[in-house]
Amino acid sequence: MNKIITIGRELGSGGRELGKRLAEMLGFAYYDSEIISGIAHKTELAESYVKKILENTPTVNFPITIGHSFYPHVGADLQQTTSIYVEQSNIITEMADKSSCVIVGRCADYILRDRNPFKIFVFASPQSRIERCRQKAPKDEHLTDKQLWKKIKKVDKSRAKYYMFYTGRKWGDKMNYDICVNTTNASIKTVAEALVKMFRDRD
Amino acid sequence: MNKIITIGRELGSGGRELGKRLAEMLGFAYYDSEIISGIAHKTELAESYVKKILENTPTVNFPITIGHSFYPHVGADLQQTTSIYVEQSNIITEMADKSSCVIVGRCADYILRDRNPFKIFVFASPQSRIERCRQKAPKDEHLTDKQLWKKIKKVDKSRAKYYMFYTGRKWGDKMNYDICVNTTNASIKTVAEALVKMFRDRD
Repeated sequence: MNKIITIGRELGSGGRELGKRLAEMLGFAYYDSEIISGIAHKTELAESYVKKILENTPTVNFPITIGHSFYPHVGADLQQTTSIYVEQSNIITEMADKSSCVIVGRCADYILRDRNPFKIFVFASPQSRIERCRQKAPKDEHLTDKQLWKKIKKVDKSRAKYYMFYTGRKWGDKMNYDICVNTTNASIKTVAEALVKMFRDRD
Repeated sequence: MNKIITIGRELGSGGRELGKRLAEMLGFAYYDSEIISGIAHKTELAESYVKKILENTPTVNFPITIGHSFYPHVGADLQQTTSIYVEQSNIITEMADKSSCVIVGRCADYILRDRNPFKIFVFASPQSRIERCRQKAPKDEHLTDKQLWKKIKKVDKSRAKYYMFYTGRKWGDKMNYDICVNTTNASIKTVAEALVKMFRDRD
């Protein structure tokens, strides 16, 4: 059976870099924005539109996994969002069927929960996240630390809402993961090496 | 400067075993109940009495670190508890001065925060914790899973209250640690090896 590593991550914590390193060290496939492209292809929607939908969380304030006998009116927007999520779940499952892989974000830990993935969450201090985001920002972006932090918090909120909506779980709650790593004082390379060790000895 | 590892842990998560392994692998001193003995010695109280005090959290519901101009009446019990905490902080600081060490519990992560300790939190699933506690229980203890879990939850609550009281922080909140490890599906030996790697590459 293929082996799966899922990574949840705070923006600016180095989760993507960690995912790429793990995939490289283990010879696994790596998926991130590729998933979005896949969905875009399958649903025949423009990639930019799908990206926008996925970044803007559904507006219903209860988890979709909770049953309701009296279900509120579901608008076209929500239907569209949910259909993209379903498509995305199918693609993630297909990826996991195809080969061992590392998947960053997109509720993959929940979608693949029956396959016993190694579930990682990556986080860091506000200052460290601001610095990492600044390094990766477009050259013409001139935000103050305060403005950048506001932007980061907005992404956090959006990810937390998205995760809660589709899984009924709290995003970043340590109980949902095998390991939570604070990258504030750590080198991603070292973290990757340590996690590969834990992952290999797991089975 | 001496190097410090602190371990916060849920009862039955294997935190003590992890601490002992880390200390052994790194050649560091290991402190746990030894701290209590130390305090008992210093405060000239019976060890069993100190243990009882430390396990029963203070009853004031705000962190001691928060200033109050109108301070409520502090009873003799609270004074006794606080004095033991102060003594304990001194002993932990002395230990950290003496040699590199691993310290389990007792707010050591907070007490030694200026020395940049490597802060670990160890947790596990309820079933895994119940099993581990059962293995270590006295032979004449015949508790059902439900009874054992109730006992475990009581210790959690007590530790959380103790930690909040003396640090003003939430016990087990991942932001307070460098790494949080779920030992449910992991071997403590492997976790120890991975963490030693991370710890060594840290400086």
